[in-house]
Amino acid sequence: MTQNQEIQLVKRPEAMPTEEHIRMTNTEMPEPGKNEVLLKTVYVSVDPYMRGRMSSAKSYVEPFALNKAISGGVIAQVVESNAESLQPGDVVTGTLPWAKYSTAPAETLRKVNPELGPVTTSLGVLGMPGLTAYFGLTDIGNPKAGETVVVSAAAGAVGSIVVQIAKIYGAHVVGIAGSEEKTRYLTEELGADKAINYKTDNLPEALIESCPDGVDVYFDNVGGEVSDAVYPLLNDHARIPQCGSIATYNDPNAQGPRLQMHIVKSRALIKGFIVGDYQPRFKEGFTKLAEWVGNGKLTYKETIKTGFDQIPEAFFGLFTGENIGKQLVKTAEIE
Amino acid sequence: MTQNQEIQLVKRPEAMPTEEHIRMTNTEMPEPGKNEVLLKTVYVSVDPYMRGRMSSAKSYVEPFALNKAISGGVIAQVVESNAESLQPGDVVTGTLPWAKYSTAPAETLRKVNPELGPVTTSLGVLGMPGLTAYFGLTDIGNPKAGETVVVSAAAGAVGSIVVQIAKIYGAHVVGIAGSEEKTRYLTEELGADKAINYKTDNLPEALIESCPDGVDVYFDNVGGEVSDAVYPLLNDHARIPQCGSIATYNDPNAQGPRLQMHIVKSRALIKGFIVGDYQPRFKEGFTKLAEWVGNGKLTYKETIKTGFDQIPEAFFGLFTGENIGKQLVKTAEIE
Repeated sequence: MTQNQEIQLVKRPEAMPTEEHIRMTNTEMPEPGKNEVLLKTVYVSVDPYMRGRMSSAKSYVEPFALNKAISGGVIAQVVESNAESLQPGDVVTGTLPWAKYSTAPAETLRKVNPELGPVTTSLGVLGMPGLTAYFGLTDIGNPKAGETVVVSAAAGAVGSIVVQIAKIYGAHVVGIAGSEEKTRYLTEELGADKAINYKTDNLPEALIESCPDGVDVYFDNVGGEVSDAVYPLLNDHARIPQCGSIATYNDPNAQGPRLQMHIVKSRALIKGFIVGDYQPRFKEGFTKLAEWVGNGKLTYKETIKTGFDQIPEAFFGLFTGENIGKQLVKTAEIE
Repeated sequence: MTQNQEIQLVKRPEAMPTEEHIRMTNTEMPEPGKNEVLLKTVYVSVDPYMRGRMSSAKSYVEPFALNKAISGGVIAQVVESNAESLQPGDVVTGTLPWAKYSTAPAETLRKVNPELGPVTTSLGVLGMPGLTAYFGLTDIGNPKAGETVVVSAAAGAVGSIVVQIAKIYGAHVVGIAGSEEKTRYLTEELGADKAINYKTDNLPEALIESCPDGVDVYFDNVGGEVSDAVYPLLNDHARIPQCGSIATYNDPNAQGPRLQMHIVKSRALIKGFIVGDYQPRFKEGFTKLAEWVGNGKLTYKETIKTGFDQIPEAFFGLFTGENIGKQLVKTAEIE
């Protein structure tokens, strides 16, 4: 049978993760145990939060072990099944290793119904990024019609969905991204009222111009200098869903202006969150997202690389802003 | 009749406020209009938030006007009354100018009942600082028995009350202050479990030692380096009532480590607030605070300077940490 391959973490990055921190290695084909299935990986999701798991610091998820396969969101097809609930050929999604083949208990996998749409949506708009956008924006941000919502990393997997949901809620939406292609995508395809290219525009000035009534909700994926420019514009009782901090993941000693005075002055609320905090409400989230995708209010884009060996580069590219929408790697065909 | 005097803001401070930003000046004795009273100032409260009003920046209160009297919390005695609700001799509290005499509409004043305790408590434990501590800690911090509560500026007017309420709620309480006298006050008189002198102790190490189970609530009065040391210790779902940011009031360009990563990792909630946000619940707050003062669970300390001309120095001293408990200035005797 085919040789298996996996991608391991071999060294914890201090700054930007690179080839030196990982290793592609040949391994034995795994054999499924009782109630387990053998899976062929077909799509791998690379996500910014995975950078956190590469460090050994205390966090909401265990750090990745050294010299073991990195794991994350994956779509896979069942090759062999020792579980009643899954048959060979079934397509599933779950947290699985970066490996060509893997085994997993059937109960840890969710079956994907290919008739509902492209299977890749289960890693994007109808998966973790979609739910993250939905709960962070609606539960913490709680935007009202006419309020101003600013979104950082607005053309990314989560941000692009936040922008559209904020429009559905009737907000004035300003997206911040890092290329002309992305800002065009924001205004022309996602319906953002304004889009700012933080690499070429004068961000503080552009924000003042784009947010004449101040900022009521700041959906923050990045931290760093982009956030520094937003805080002085916060309105009274502004809300900041703190979804990520990608600008600082690779530079834990980054310095910047102190933000507490703005928090006091505006009486803002900032709330860090992860999608898992909303597990009891996932069904509500899936229903809403599927409804909006169904009636065309929510569109999505995917950036897909092809080939198992492309996973590391796809992951590294998240930190240089290469992707528009959800970054995926296609590793095999669904048969 | 006596000449009146007032203290005006004549220049907006960029950094530390000093004598050059204010002016003591002789003025006409004011005359009360219809439904107004003539008041003799007896106690003046100096509070850190007043620093914010000296700047022209957008905030939750109007900036002080230049060449006009600074105003703040004051206890005064009625000298003449054109209002039915107040009689000469009555003691009242309100937001009044830094002046020996002033007039005010009776409806803007709250009568102080001297039989309930020292009148000065209406500017402290049974006034704005007490309510600030109560609502910030209980509504935003929401400490549970056994949780760890860290308080910055813990020996100040607000912090000293927060420490005691956190103990009433059964928390493990760690106070941070800037002198040995203050840390002794925290542990020996207020019941804090641990107290850290941030000027002489190694703050990050002392915090780790004092908070073996991490930090669940951080009642933050200061921002700045003290907060930098607390954020890495935040537990999952930690709460931070952001009451003030005194460490940065005089240095708006202060830089420090970026904190968003800690917010994401711990999924913390940070909420800026002012006591006015809780106006509809003031009665509840007063009742609780009076009950705890009455049964001895809540004690308080005042640092009182004497003489109208001592007001500026008392105010400046807030930023160098001179006061223990509530800083007041006694400007006249109650007759």
